[in-house]
Amino acid sequence: MKFCSNCKATVELRVPEGDTLPRYVCLACNIIHYQNPKMVVGCIPEWEDKILLCRRAIEPRSGWWTLPAGFMENNETLAEAAARETLEEACARVAIGSLYTIYSLPHISQVYLLFRARLLDLDFKPGIESLEVALFAEHEIPWNEMAFRVIHDPLKRYFQERSRGSIGFHMGVIDHPHKACN
Amino acid sequence: MKFCSNCKATVELRVPEGDTLPRYVCLACNIIHYQNPKMVVGCIPEWEDKILLCRRAIEPRSGWWTLPAGFMENNETLAEAAARETLEEACARVAIGSLYTIYSLPHISQVYLLFRARLLDLDFKPGIESLEVALFAEHEIPWNEMAFRVIHDPLKRYFQERSRGSIGFHMGVIDHPHKACN
Repeated sequence: MKFCSNCKATVELRVPEGDTLPRYVCLACNIIHYQNPKMVVGCIPEWEDKILLCRRAIEPRSGWWTLPAGFMENNETLAEAAARETLEEACARVAIGSLYTIYSLPHISQVYLLFRARLLDLDFKPGIESLEVALFAEHEIPWNEMAFRVIHDPLKRYFQERSRGSIGFHMGVIDHPHKACN
Repeated sequence: MKFCSNCKATVELRVPEGDTLPRYVCLACNIIHYQNPKMVVGCIPEWEDKILLCRRAIEPRSGWWTLPAGFMENNETLAEAAARETLEEACARVAIGSLYTIYSLPHISQVYLLFRARLLDLDFKPGIESLEVALFAEHEIPWNEMAFRVIHDPLKRYFQERSRGSIGFHMGVIDHPHKACN
């Protein structure tokens, strides 16, 4: 950030009076431009024993597999965000269930939330951000081609818990950069 | 938003190609300035049968009671945010426990997360954003002077569940403006 979005004067990075962290402050109108973490919201769409995955058509990790998920928008609820992302990325309709995992990713200032979900029909296809969309049984999941650890780890856990017959809620922290997971 | 924070040219609100929602787009450098919901993170600090509340020294709802909570900062985890806000608003040290409630507030584009927490000592006092900080047993809580419904409702539920001996996890939506709750 170089300029004030309110008056186009130059901003400087400094700790405002009464604050504890450096913020972008306008040198002319004194507005403080706060920057805060964003939420990425998605789901684990289930059809019988299979899960719907999307192969990414966009960076980062273009060509790798992921669950439908994306940045939450203003004026929507968490469940609405998860359903919207699934419709956008997989053209798929889901009934959103309970929250399954919530991960803090402090190194990239994101909080990642995944819901359980039930796929409502098989009329899915790739949205513009996906190359391919398909259903996978556990043994068919391309574990070594998963785009993000924050997708890989909850999905691995989901199958383990499902096989034990007890699917819970989990909170965690992933504090290192994106990498393939195995 | 009127000007581009990257190049100070004028921005316009339009739907970018391949997108579905209007965004602020720079007319000169074409950067898209996304705006997303923010997280407010706090806790329910418990000491024996009492809960620590803060009387707000700042707007909105200055003079009204609340739990320690505030905007999550970049590069921290959810639990770190809850502990930091409690230290800032009540100068109180807590051990953060499990996540208790997560509420979507779509009308103000916020997601509100409250953790269970154990107060570690009685050496608390008002931080600069609080007029007063005090411990309350259930029958002492100023229910009609609570600042926000998103504080009132989870706290009410917390006492009900605690008295039944089963404190769970709850997700909800509050989709109308701030108001006193009773």
